[in-house]
Amino acid sequence: MKIYDWPTGPYPARVRIALAEKNLQSAVQFVTVDLRKGEHKTADFLATKNYSGTLPVLELDDGTLIAECTAITEYLDALDAAQTLTGTTPRDRGVIHMMNKRAELELLDAISVYFHHATPGLGPQVEIYQNEEWGLRQRDKAVRGMRYFDSVLRQQPFVAGEAFSMADITVVGGLIFASLVKLPVPVECEALVAWYARMQQRPSVRHQLAMVPPPREPAA
Amino acid sequence: MKIYDWPTGPYPARVRIALAEKNLQSAVQFVTVDLRKGEHKTADFLATKNYSGTLPVLELDDGTLIAECTAITEYLDALDAAQTLTGTTPRDRGVIHMMNKRAELELLDAISVYFHHATPGLGPQVEIYQNEEWGLRQRDKAVRGMRYFDSVLRQQPFVAGEAFSMADITVVGGLIFASLVKLPVPVECEALVAWYARMQQRPSVRHQLAMVPPPREPAA
Repeated sequence: MKIYDWPTGPYPARVRIALAEKNLQSAVQFVTVDLRKGEHKTADFLATKNYSGTLPVLELDDGTLIAECTAITEYLDALDAAQTLTGTTPRDRGVIHMMNKRAELELLDAISVYFHHATPGLGPQVEIYQNEEWGLRQRDKAVRGMRYFDSVLRQQPFVAGEAFSMADITVVGGLIFASLVKLPVPVECEALVAWYARMQQRPSVRHQLAMVPPPREPAA
Repeated sequence: MKIYDWPTGPYPARVRIALAEKNLQSAVQFVTVDLRKGEHKTADFLATKNYSGTLPVLELDDGTLIAECTAITEYLDALDAAQTLTGTTPRDRGVIHMMNKRAELELLDAISVYFHHATPGLGPQVEIYQNEEWGLRQRDKAVRGMRYFDSVLRQQPFVAGEAFSMADITVVGGLIFASLVKLPVPVECEALVAWYARMQQRPSVRHQLAMVPPPREPAA
């Protein structure tokens, strides 16, 4: 199978971490789509790979295309019976999907909107429409989201309860994006920071973070 | 189990249709949360039911709370082995989740943002922040989304392929919301219109649509 992505992107990171958790990296051929050139927004990419113009996209050997990180993770996790990322009982499946969606809504997607609308984003050729006020609202929402996930992690070891799941991966994606846009985690979010340190002990996360360039320091 | 919702809301409709498809309506006690009074945005609701302040929310008999329509549908569909709404093979699970998310992004969620930001929405006491420009962009995105789903349904009988799934339910939710906000489906979207007529022959959808008040005609 192929994955179209941009290796250091926060959304591609979610799928790369899921692949590593499932020991499937060697089953995938990665095809780089240059975000900075807007290759994910060309008419050809929208028509033949992903109508929504986002990365990553999984292409199966029969040509089936699966976009959206959660959908790709569902595919990968269903390849074996263990379902270690999406849960096995109805209750676990429901709670993991809820927390995964909440991590998108309240953190990762909010930071993405901030990046694309209230910062230079991918540059003027890609960011052809920006709504700065909306972007700044989403930045503030993401900081509230960090406080929310901190409150969750004060009660339980992982985002969706007692076990690692795709919901943890999505919060990791959110903190990767936060680092890229230099949006700091509030210092009082000690449980979130401690959880992130534990996440970085997992080989899947450590390997992905090693690919992410450190955020540039502001000019002195 | 309990479901906190607003009976005629487009998102609650998704879960009510899923319940009917699974023959689980009689297993649920519905608790009305008055959207028009903003009861889903009170500090108590956010703290004890759903941080994101949306409906519906499922509460299991052990007190577990599951918000987000996709997560609730995952829970309900996993209660039996058939998984008629979310798929059984890895490929089907991936494609259904992709098309379900796309129906949210490109249609249902876009119409929701339009409603809350570029129309009076739920009224001034609930809509305490509006970004009209963003709302109008999302309206236009939703109309493009209708054309996209029309193109999909020219190729295959259901949104995610050869069988009914939760992705169809989400597009139904989108068209329910479109009707409420009087956003017409473009007349040339004949495949989408024909599919919607077929959907309304399903008892689950027909029953739900019978609860939705017809859109008010504009004053003459």
